[in-house]
Amino acid sequence: MTSLTLSALSDIATLPLTAFDSASAEAATARQNQLTKPPGSLGRLEELAAFMAGWRGTDRPEIAKAQALVFAGNHGVCAQGVNPFPQEVTVQMVANFEAGGAAINQLCKASGADLGVVALDLDKPTQDFTTAPAMSEAEVLDAMARGAAAVDTSADILLLGEMGIGNSTIAAALALAVFGGEAIDWVGRGTGSDSDGMKHKADVITRGLALHAGTDAIGKLAALGGREQAAICGAVLAARAARIPVILDGYICTAAVAPLFAARPETLEHCQIAHMSAEPGHRKLAEGMGKTPLLDLGMALGEGSGAALALSVIRGALACHNGMATFAEAGVSDA
Amino acid sequence: MTSLTLSALSDIATLPLTAFDSASAEAATARQNQLTKPPGSLGRLEELAAFMAGWRGTDRPEIAKAQALVFAGNHGVCAQGVNPFPQEVTVQMVANFEAGGAAINQLCKASGADLGVVALDLDKPTQDFTTAPAMSEAEVLDAMARGAAAVDTSADILLLGEMGIGNSTIAAALALAVFGGEAIDWVGRGTGSDSDGMKHKADVITRGLALHAGTDAIGKLAALGGREQAAICGAVLAARAARIPVILDGYICTAAVAPLFAARPETLEHCQIAHMSAEPGHRKLAEGMGKTPLLDLGMALGEGSGAALALSVIRGALACHNGMATFAEAGVSDA
Repeated sequence: MTSLTLSALSDIATLPLTAFDSASAEAATARQNQLTKPPGSLGRLEELAAFMAGWRGTDRPEIAKAQALVFAGNHGVCAQGVNPFPQEVTVQMVANFEAGGAAINQLCKASGADLGVVALDLDKPTQDFTTAPAMSEAEVLDAMARGAAAVDTSADILLLGEMGIGNSTIAAALALAVFGGEAIDWVGRGTGSDSDGMKHKADVITRGLALHAGTDAIGKLAALGGREQAAICGAVLAARAARIPVILDGYICTAAVAPLFAARPETLEHCQIAHMSAEPGHRKLAEGMGKTPLLDLGMALGEGSGAALALSVIRGALACHNGMATFAEAGVSDA
Repeated sequence: MTSLTLSALSDIATLPLTAFDSASAEAATARQNQLTKPPGSLGRLEELAAFMAGWRGTDRPEIAKAQALVFAGNHGVCAQGVNPFPQEVTVQMVANFEAGGAAINQLCKASGADLGVVALDLDKPTQDFTTAPAMSEAEVLDAMARGAAAVDTSADILLLGEMGIGNSTIAAALALAVFGGEAIDWVGRGTGSDSDGMKHKADVITRGLALHAGTDAIGKLAALGGREQAAICGAVLAARAARIPVILDGYICTAAVAPLFAARPETLEHCQIAHMSAEPGHRKLAEGMGKTPLLDLGMALGEGSGAALALSVIRGALACHNGMATFAEAGVSDA
């Protein structure tokens, strides 16, 4: 992981962070204002062009290579019966990713992303956070390092996704730990919970938080998180070091980086949220981080599926940015 | 235009309309429920798969060919000073489309759509609707027929867009004529109007509506519309005859078909709205038609730009539908 060490990861406050290149972003915006359209009329696409420009350090950013990473983990809190699916499904879905049969495979093919899948000790679930910290500090740092190491530093953009039976409970616990409120505010149906299931999830989360009160941000990630959450945090930091913008998928991915936000909000400046999940806590979480998801299609699958769809929007934004004629080039009157 | 005549177009109530194939749509939904994901977790993508299945008449719909059509027209109401840009820009932008320099060119290339541009008598603007009907019945039917004739009946999906200086005023007038309220409710900035400009647009529209009160739906299209609006209506009906689903771009396209909605709402069953325009009237218009736009990216360009972006979402939906493994195929446990 470029210029970061394991020990540095544990002290987010002093991590060296690459800076957004405002000059490139401003040059991109200046170009947008010369393209054959009313200024601002491409809305979010214009913002995305400037965002990509600032992080890639060029006024004409391109996506030659897009990497998608799906991190998979298993969770001790499943012992509390928070999910109607058996935990074996995590391994089965990883096999499905590897065989090319999942949604993320089709969506990466459609939008032109190279998919990598990282299974994190699926045979060794984390501890049940209602009885012990989910991970030791060594375990959380190891998972962060594995997430960081998976990042292809030659890519122009990184899409992050996850798979892990029980991890909507993990997401709600992390969101609650960072943003407060009541557990039930952060709980949704996940993969197949009904109202009783949701209430049960909220009770489990409330117990977990009570047990681990008073930890710092990385402490919360260790106490309540899972390996895929830690790996996502590591990948976000590695991408930042390489000036690679990140598209976080949905609720689980956004919640995974909530501890980074709590520790130092600017660690997420290079991240966009792909889509507004159907999980009800996601809106509040995105608002809490000051980010507006790119899409809102009622999806709640995970895997990075929303991130892969959002890549097409970003590709469209850059196609306009790089391919359109200016008013002068096209001989179109500029009001 | 397949099985429709010019005279039939003028009597929407008796037009033969192809029917949605519910059996194919139900078979598509049944397949979705067997794919390796929690049922419903792909949200709108699952609905789109069933929508495409029903209109294409197959449980495994594909998009081998996507056609995008941009219709361009000029408007007599520009004499009232409703737009700060000169009317020559319509011709200049058509040349830009033909030279490949506009946003729609880049977005069609990115999402794989064949772009066609139809310029409708740009040297002969419609009449100023504050003093006369914009078009005669013969003119409106001619423009509808030209829109219909432009549809490639071998395509699997049709994206519709438009260009015409002054046509956000046309859109607001048609929306007001169909859905009522006050003119100012339907007026936005269009291409560069400020608050005074918006108030002026609203006054112009109020005068126009007063002059043409009491006309039927096609009469409203003739009295207040433009050639590109009529062509869009013709293309929508021709696509319906060929069972081709339609993606309407934004505010201008949605308002263009408001007269069809007024005459017979089911004429738009095969249409999706691509994106929620930044023009404030669009939300109310979409709600009035009972349709939820696929994207919401603050765009307000027109040209079909939102429709071309939305095509990527629909391609993603069908990639999942056709490419994913079922639970049985992948050996994944189905709760």
